[in-house]
Amino acid sequence: MNLHRARPSGLPLAPAFARAARASIAALLVAAAAGGPNPARADEGEWPPDRLATLGNSFWTTWHQRGLALGATDLWDGRGGGLAAAAVALRGCSAAFVSPDGLLMTNHHCAFDALALASTPGRDYLKDGFVSHGRAGEVEARGGASRVWVLARTEDVTGRVRGPGSAFARAGDDRARFRAVERARKELVAECEARPDRRCLVVPFLDGLSWVREEQVELKDVRLVYAPPRDVGDFGGEVDNFRWPRHAGDFAVLRAYVAPDGSPAPFSPANVPYRPKAWLPVSTSGVKEGDALAILGYPGKTQRFLTAAAVDGLEGWFYPLRARTLGDLIGILDRETEGDPATSLKVASAVKGFNNSRTNALGQIEGLKRNGVAARARREEERLSAWLASRPGAPAAWKSAARDVEEVLARDRRGRDRRFFLEELARLPGPLRSALAAVRRAEERGKPDLERDAGTQDRDLPAARQREMDLTRVLGTRAWSRAAAYLIARANAAGATPVPAFVRAFGAAADEAAIARRLAAMDQETGLGDEGRRLANLTADLASLASSKDPYVALAVALAPEYRALREQAEETGGGLLRTRPAYLAALSELRASEGRLVAPDANGTLRVSFARVKGYVPREALTASPQTSLAGLLQKERGAEPFVVPPRVLEAIRRGDLGRWVDPALGTVPVDFLADGDTTGGNSGSPVVNGRGELVGLNFDRVWENVAGDFGWSPELSRNVCVDVRYALWLIDRVDGDRALVDELVPSRASP
Amino acid sequence: MNLHRARPSGLPLAPAFARAARASIAALLVAAAAGGPNPARADEGEWPPDRLATLGNSFWTTWHQRGLALGATDLWDGRGGGLAAAAVALRGCSAAFVSPDGLLMTNHHCAFDALALASTPGRDYLKDGFVSHGRAGEVEARGGASRVWVLARTEDVTGRVRGPGSAFARAGDDRARFRAVERARKELVAECEARPDRRCLVVPFLDGLSWVREEQVELKDVRLVYAPPRDVGDFGGEVDNFRWPRHAGDFAVLRAYVAPDGSPAPFSPANVPYRPKAWLPVSTSGVKEGDALAILGYPGKTQRFLTAAAVDGLEGWFYPLRARTLGDLIGILDRETEGDPATSLKVASAVKGFNNSRTNALGQIEGLKRNGVAARARREEERLSAWLASRPGAPAAWKSAARDVEEVLARDRRGRDRRFFLEELARLPGPLRSALAAVRRAEERGKPDLERDAGTQDRDLPAARQREMDLTRVLGTRAWSRAAAYLIARANAAGATPVPAFVRAFGAAADEAAIARRLAAMDQETGLGDEGRRLANLTADLASLASSKDPYVALAVALAPEYRALREQAEETGGGLLRTRPAYLAALSELRASEGRLVAPDANGTLRVSFARVKGYVPREALTASPQTSLAGLLQKERGAEPFVVPPRVLEAIRRGDLGRWVDPALGTVPVDFLADGDTTGGNSGSPVVNGRGELVGLNFDRVWENVAGDFGWSPELSRNVCVDVRYALWLIDRVDGDRALVDELVPSRASP
Repeated sequence: MNLHRARPSGLPLAPAFARAARASIAALLVAAAAGGPNPARADEGEWPPDRLATLGNSFWTTWHQRGLALGATDLWDGRGGGLAAAAVALRGCSAAFVSPDGLLMTNHHCAFDALALASTPGRDYLKDGFVSHGRAGEVEARGGASRVWVLARTEDVTGRVRGPGSAFARAGDDRARFRAVERARKELVAECEARPDRRCLVVPFLDGLSWVREEQVELKDVRLVYAPPRDVGDFGGEVDNFRWPRHAGDFAVLRAYVAPDGSPAPFSPANVPYRPKAWLPVSTSGVKEGDALAILGYPGKTQRFLTAAAVDGLEGWFYPLRARTLGDLIGILDRETEGDPATSLKVASAVKGFNNSRTNALGQIEGLKRNGVAARARREEERLSAWLASRPGAPAAWKSAARDVEEVLARDRRGRDRRFFLEELARLPGPLRSALAAVRRAEERGKPDLERDAGTQDRDLPAARQREMDLTRVLGTRAWSRAAAYLIARANAAGATPVPAFVRAFGAAADEAAIARRLAAMDQETGLGDEGRRLANLTADLASLASSKDPYVALAVALAPEYRALREQAEETGGGLLRTRPAYLAALSELRASEGRLVAPDANGTLRVSFARVKGYVPREALTASPQTSLAGLLQKERGAEPFVVPPRVLEAIRRGDLGRWVDPALGTVPVDFLADGDTTGGNSGSPVVNGRGELVGLNFDRVWENVAGDFGWSPELSRNVCVDVRYALWLIDRVDGDRALVDELVPSRASP
Repeated sequence: MNLHRARPSGLPLAPAFARAARASIAALLVAAAAGGPNPARADEGEWPPDRLATLGNSFWTTWHQRGLALGATDLWDGRGGGLAAAAVALRGCSAAFVSPDGLLMTNHHCAFDALALASTPGRDYLKDGFVSHGRAGEVEARGGASRVWVLARTEDVTGRVRGPGSAFARAGDDRARFRAVERARKELVAECEARPDRRCLVVPFLDGLSWVREEQVELKDVRLVYAPPRDVGDFGGEVDNFRWPRHAGDFAVLRAYVAPDGSPAPFSPANVPYRPKAWLPVSTSGVKEGDALAILGYPGKTQRFLTAAAVDGLEGWFYPLRARTLGDLIGILDRETEGDPATSLKVASAVKGFNNSRTNALGQIEGLKRNGVAARARREEERLSAWLASRPGAPAAWKSAARDVEEVLARDRRGRDRRFFLEELARLPGPLRSALAAVRRAEERGKPDLERDAGTQDRDLPAARQREMDLTRVLGTRAWSRAAAYLIARANAAGATPVPAFVRAFGAAADEAAIARRLAAMDQETGLGDEGRRLANLTADLASLASSKDPYVALAVALAPEYRALREQAEETGGGLLRTRPAYLAALSELRASEGRLVAPDANGTLRVSFARVKGYVPREALTASPQTSLAGLLQKERGAEPFVVPPRVLEAIRRGDLGRWVDPALGTVPVDFLADGDTTGGNSGSPVVNGRGELVGLNFDRVWENVAGDFGWSPELSRNVCVDVRYALWLIDRVDGDRALVDELVPSRASP
């Protein structure tokens, strides 16, 4: 799935910049060219809407020849209008307005928790789906889909973040640089969020060469309108995840409401549908191979400009270590809960997350290797170096940039194995995580709110409390302390001498088994099994924590210097990269511009447009994937057992041949999913996909396995994203569930008997 | 892999016929039409060579138009010559002579144990491969590849098995019928094996409508000539097993030797190469999509004529129960040995086998459903019934055949769950299996050898002794008794009351945990941990076993009546099927003949010929597989970790571009594997695949996942077998390992610099 999962905030070691910037601590923000003369310069790129007008004739001519009837200003008019403005952000996802009355379409998996939270013992909307049959039937969405963010304004704030005279410009070392930028970002956000109902982001483009503030209006009354049964929305489940061919109906329909005066307001029966500035008409004419498309949405993060050394670190160190560690943790959690359904349930969510991350890591290793990402980065660095050597007038900072970046990274590699295990430990559910979070908050509490590290500000307290409440459900199995013992033993072994705080807690010679025994005893002694105690700790001061007799709190206090050192190292690295990476990106951009090549900035959570075509691919030798699936393939996969169940009412509609007007003539039945060569990443879940006339033809929901490493380098052969065909959605709403009101609203002009 | 795994013989419940005939006890030998008008009547069929001349003009015209330049007599001349005579049998496998000097090619996995057994601490032929560089370097093959069986003569023996006046014809009930056939088969085998160096089989065609005796000459001096490293031969391992695209170099080269006078003789330096009657020239011109092929070999068992009720039993009962049970057993063995490499090793082989069988069972369920085998069988029964109704003169036995078969099957379904678990228990490694085998042998010892049940005759003693010796290596973990406890608890729960012998041994109320505790105690008390004791028991008499104080021997003695009842039920079912199935097959053959359709008899371990073409397929919607792979795809899969390792010397040859004359012009590099739509099954591992001119172009080694259920119904769309391209073998021998002598012997006329 293409959900964008930010790390949970509020972890003890996590300054905001470092957290946002590092999928891998070792490698972050470091440049690697997408590299070598670009074979498909019109295809790669998640374009900021305001860049569209600058992409040049050759770009637009290519796309018009491919069937795109839209120009730059159709997509973005520069005044907050245009088709791209119909795309909005949900937590971790994208969505689009599809009617003048605030109707939204996104992925089923983006509305997953809203469906679960709206269910009652008698009504299971996840299992059975949700059909509103008119506005009166719509119900409040809670959870991730309860807020929708509509872009209101973007503004260049580079001057305030790093301009002459800024604290960044005046800073004497890298940690000071990092903290100066963090402070400027927080001030810019706070200033913007002083207006009511605003969510604001301050994000770097080209690794901080420029900075942009995005101001979003937060809509707070979102309602469920329609969702298919989970067996449709998640058909194929983990087995099909990242795979093609695919047969998931991964969509849901929501509606945004506002107060009668048009201002954002929390759920109220008095609220009225929101009237969006822009919305997408829904196509009924479908797609076919080769069709031109545009994909709109809020992609989370790509790193297309890493240096070769950084890629080596990902491919040779970070992902292999991550895959191995998660594999070991999964084994421990499985083993410790085997044969006991009650405790198995407590670790199920963590195991699922670990499995997904481990699969992702294995895919990254395979993809980086297969796509030759490191080799391409190396070639790009060499080209850059040769080009700079031929230009005596180039800035000195450009000439030294690659070397400067490498110095920062080399410094960051110190102690990276131990750091990896300590970070995993701080994330692992259990009393230690709770105690570490409490200590961390207490350490920061003395500072003014704006000076605190991100995740520890007042605004972060509700999320921290929620985490403690969520923890209650998963405590009560020794699996967590066994997993913690594993990570502690690994952290000890990763340095020349064991971690001092662990020596004091477990003894100098303690092996994993001895640590596990001591942790089991601590589980008996601790008061952190009590939710009230954990919540109280979140607002306790450092002195009272330091004097606590609770063994986990004591351990967390003893570990504080370790984590502080990690944070300082992360700040130093972050500042170093802020100092060196912009110069590298500036030089690289200049080189590419001199070759007539476009440079698309990395995804950073802001609104983007990607151009694509409906296209199959060759996943590997002797296998060709065509780009469309249908009900025929759905039935082929059906086996009456999860994750390949077709719900009875869907089967019945197929059996009685009730396909309505949603048949694709070429496929001979209702289409289900399609493939495109869009440039997408996490956060593009739910992204609207429009045809050459700007009509909605599908919703992006995943990418293929061979494209998992696409975040580090786009490939014309392998970069494919997976979309649900809007005709499948319309068939389900119309023929399977008979929600006439919704069909008429989605395709009003074409409504026919 | 397409190895044919017969059940281990000598199990207490195993009369030979029942053993050979039942992949599923419930369903065996019962007819289901391949059914409905056959869309590809020239493509399905594993033809006995002597049937080739009778296949008719339309068959041969079709194949000649497809490019087959061979006629029936080229393949089989009726005097033991012809290309098919170059195909020979190995244990579980097929092979072919490829030179006048006794050179043989087969699969790497068929020579697997020979390579392991020939290895020494200093020389690992499995890991490194084996290159003889001339006859002096060839070494003795032990294990499965140590014997080669060359077809000498086939003979119709129907009259003696079931003709008028036979014991079968005179028998008064089904058990007597079964025992009469078994007796006749043993006599016919013994009579034939009285000649020196003979192995003889007496097998049913069309479920016993006719009986054939196959006389084979056993060659006893087989030597290793060449094998690639395991990373080549088993490239892709379990991950790729049953999959396409494939990149395994699954071949090995052997040579058969005989005494200087030409007679079979055990290994001796004085022996000389065997001069086969027929051998296959090796092609260097390769294959391309659409090429006509013939596949020769010894397929083990298909069941294409099952009745619908029998298919239902497989799909709804047998395979689901098998998959679930094996899954549980794997879980137990894994859990009990986790974290302990030494005991993990003891269960590794069983776990691997269980996994393979479980995967197979899941594939069967999926394939039976996807291919609609039960529905086709039902239609065929209905057609047969309608056709017989219109023919008043048809024999009464034909008219009642389907009903008669169903009566036998219904009787056989009694107690099938308990029977399933007891049979699994008797196969599970451990002291109980050993004790059960000893009791079984003792029960039969009083009878004349020819009257004993198969597996308990004198000729079976060496194999029984070998099993006890093999057991020594895997004893010494409580995993086996935990697995036994699981099966015992399941057997108890499967009836209205628990098994009496288990009640006596474990108590009436013992649950799985209690049974496991008692078995653990028995493991301490038993003397069967001692190999000598177990071997002695194999020849002990019943009285001494009955008075044994060994808890496992006592349990086996107490269980004897249970297993005796199962054997009697199996004999009754076997006899019932021998009484009813031939009539069903006769009627069905007559119906098909009246429609001009061919009936290919089920595979039964005898020499067969299948005609095929090089052909891709659509494994599922939106995915198309093309039929050839190459070194390019091999490198794509390579990841430096099992099972995707390309050995250094192979990588080096590729990197230096040393491809010799083995490049496929269309692929642009050396081909590796290819797909065909051959009709194959277990036992076809190592089957020679010849082109339209009768030249060897490949060796069959597997089939695709979608064809796992092909044993129950051939499909033109999905039945695909996987072959290694002989050019890959030649490239490895020639360019990677430089064995000039071998290349010159394999392709003498074309030898060029």
